[in-house]
Amino acid sequence: MNRPIVTLTTDFGPGPFPGLMKGVILGICPNANLVDLSHAVPAQDVRAGALVIEQALGVFPSGTVHLGVVDPGVGTSRRPMAAAALGMLFVGPDNGLFTPALMADPRARIHELRETALFRQPVCATFHGRDVFAPVAARLAGGLDLHRLGPPIQDPVLLTWPQPREENGVLHGSVLSADSFGNLDTNLPRDLVEAFLAGRRAEVRLGALRIIDIQGAYGQATAGQPLALFNSMDRLELAISQGNLYARLAPERGSAFGLAVEVRGVD
Amino acid sequence: MNRPIVTLTTDFGPGPFPGLMKGVILGICPNANLVDLSHAVPAQDVRAGALVIEQALGVFPSGTVHLGVVDPGVGTSRRPMAAAALGMLFVGPDNGLFTPALMADPRARIHELRETALFRQPVCATFHGRDVFAPVAARLAGGLDLHRLGPPIQDPVLLTWPQPREENGVLHGSVLSADSFGNLDTNLPRDLVEAFLAGRRAEVRLGALRIIDIQGAYGQATAGQPLALFNSMDRLELAISQGNLYARLAPERGSAFGLAVEVRGVD
Amino acid sequence: MNRPIVTLTTDFGPGPFPGLMKGVILGICPNANLVDLSHAVPAQDVRAGALVIEQALGVFPSGTVHLGVVDPGVGTSRRPMAAAALGMLFVGPDNGLFTPALMADPRARIHELRETALFRQPVCATFHGRDVFAPVAARLAGGLDLHRLGPPIQDPVLLTWPQPREENGVLHGSVLSADSFGNLDTNLPRDLVEAFLAGRRAEVRLGALRIIDIQGAYGQATAGQPLALFNSMDRLELAISQGNLYARLAPERGSAFGLAVEVRGVD
Repeated sequence: MNRPIVTLTTDFGPGPFPGLMKGVILGICPNANLVDLSHAVPAQDVRAGALVIEQALGVFPSGTVHLGVVDPGVGTSRRPMAAAALGMLFVGPDNGLFTPALMADPRARIHELRETALFRQPVCATFHGRDVFAPVAARLAGGLDLHRLGPPIQDPVLLTWPQPREENGVLHGSVLSADSFGNLDTNLPRDLVEAFLAGRRAEVRLGALRIIDIQGAYGQATAGQPLALFNSMDRLELAISQGNLYARLAPERGSAFGLAVEVRGVD
Repeated sequence: MNRPIVTLTTDFGPGPFPGLMKGVILGICPNANLVDLSHAVPAQDVRAGALVIEQALGVFPSGTVHLGVVDPGVGTSRRPMAAAALGMLFVGPDNGLFTPALMADPRARIHELRETALFRQPVCATFHGRDVFAPVAARLAGGLDLHRLGPPIQDPVLLTWPQPREENGVLHGSVLSADSFGNLDTNLPRDLVEAFLAGRRAEVRLGALRIIDIQGAYGQATAGQPLALFNSMDRLELAISQGNLYARLAPERGSAFGLAVEVRGVD
Repeated sequence: MNRPIVTLTTDFGPGPFPGLMKGVILGICPNANLVDLSHAVPAQDVRAGALVIEQALGVFPSGTVHLGVVDPGVGTSRRPMAAAALGMLFVGPDNGLFTPALMADPRARIHELRETALFRQPVCATFHGRDVFAPVAARLAGGLDLHRLGPPIQDPVLLTWPQPREENGVLHGSVLSADSFGNLDTNLPRDLVEAFLAGRRAEVRLGALRIIDIQGAYGQATAGQPLALFNSMDRLELAISQGNLYARLAPERGSAFGLAVEVRGVD
């Protein structure tokens, strides 16, 4: 029988907290197959965490349990939750961390975690990852049904994302995040950009930067040159070939989120 | 049958050394279930490593093998060791790395690793993690008994920790470590602090910082405000809500260890 | 039956990309045993990646699949490849990343990845790790034969390494890389150095640094003192006992590669 997959996404950094969660999971579900998705989510940045978990949708096998802990409200009245959406399961705080999956599946089922007998006892108010979310993820991996966890949630917290808009012949978008190479992911999906361009060449602006054309690969620009291309989420991405665009552009901001991107069609 | 769990704790950082240890373990014990506890222990900081492994006690299932390599004396006369304590096994250098488990279990059994036939050959003097500790951990995970490894150790190296003391109505403690959020763990256990306070409100001082009251959760302070609370080790912790106390306070020290903390009772 | 081991070596850093590759692998080969070798290879540094994978040779069990993605040419005409060498399998870009294994095994078999039906579809030009290399690694782990992947490659890209040379009684070598402790690995194998010295004491020079004698262990020098010793690859290594030689010497270079090392025999 296949071992149930449990992924972990947190803002815990390189220390022992993810390993401690794994210890709890393996104590309950010894055949869980644990996969780190990322522990490098910036501290308390729920939106960045949501963008990480979004990348796993459609990539992991159905039945995968995605455990997410980016949880500035740990120990307060924010609800702990679990959800079934898109054939996968999600466990973590009800703070928007699972927004992309919940938005993509109109039949998503969401339950509050109220059945305290399923938790590790005593529950520490600073580490629900270890004492609440890990044991519940382990039980879901072991086959427990969502409705056993607590009452349904009808009004989950959902994040809102900046939406692209077209105005005076310009497609306005914005940067969502920077990856470890300093490449900037935007909120502009390929189909939207291609429909907007309608066969014209693209001019992409980001601050003082102007990029002509959308390339097929990083290596199609000379090393050190900025370029635009569609990334693994099928969204417009801005990068520097063999370089780090984020480091050149915006490190003092602390986050690339929200940088304005404009696309124009040129002949 | 359950797969035996082997955790890894080192100061090896993000490079290939932990993976190489795993290769050796899987060659000897193919069904080992490998869990990284932390590879971000500061280089050569045995005490910090001990504080990481301490967090795994009571969290991982019994029978877990904890492999720890923070080993500035690698290749010298410091003894390699393995121990059984608290229903778990420990493998690494005899330099104090396993102090909390050995102190907590008066019936701990400790053996020196002398049976060189169990090692990977030839043993490299710079990487006992790969050539000595990994193969021994794999054999223990496979069921080998401790006494097969070498003679008992009666005088293991044990670290001493700063102990809290009460003087003139002030409870004096000190910081043990900072986690990846910059939260400061202290040597003040909850029961000691609560007995000292005897129902009074707490005033906690750390350098110029004064914090009134002990909160139940990070989110109970306004973002950016310092707070005190009991952490997942049930010890007093100092933090900044959604901020990084260590970064504000003491980064130039290189380590938060030893910062003085005072607790007073106020009405 | 043993679970097939798949190691991962990339320059992806601490974000979600390695985890996404694992999701693809587990969807195809659910019993794959995934081991991170390193995701801290400097961005686009193929040579540094090759030096990481070299360390796994002889350490992981035979049959292991080594998946390597340091791939500045992703999406361009550089060929994707898989190879069988030294009893192990290798999957990644044909850019030299597997040079040490291919050079060490005259009977290495190399095939281009042309059978696009084996890939994840559609293939994104920015992330062959997820869409090309991960699925192929999973299929090789599942037992697929190399010749099913595409035509043989007779002219793989191979990196050249600086070679030691002896001139006027001096053995000239150079630094290959720095590890996370700041220890510097050189291209000088133990047997070459020992034959050169022929029983004389060594004087090792690196810039202004002069080190007398080759030690057996880091701890044989006083803390803070530079020393030379043979490392876990059986090559000459330069280090500072309980310190960081790279940080003292060359951080502004960005890489330690190529720093000149001289060995002399003294009486």
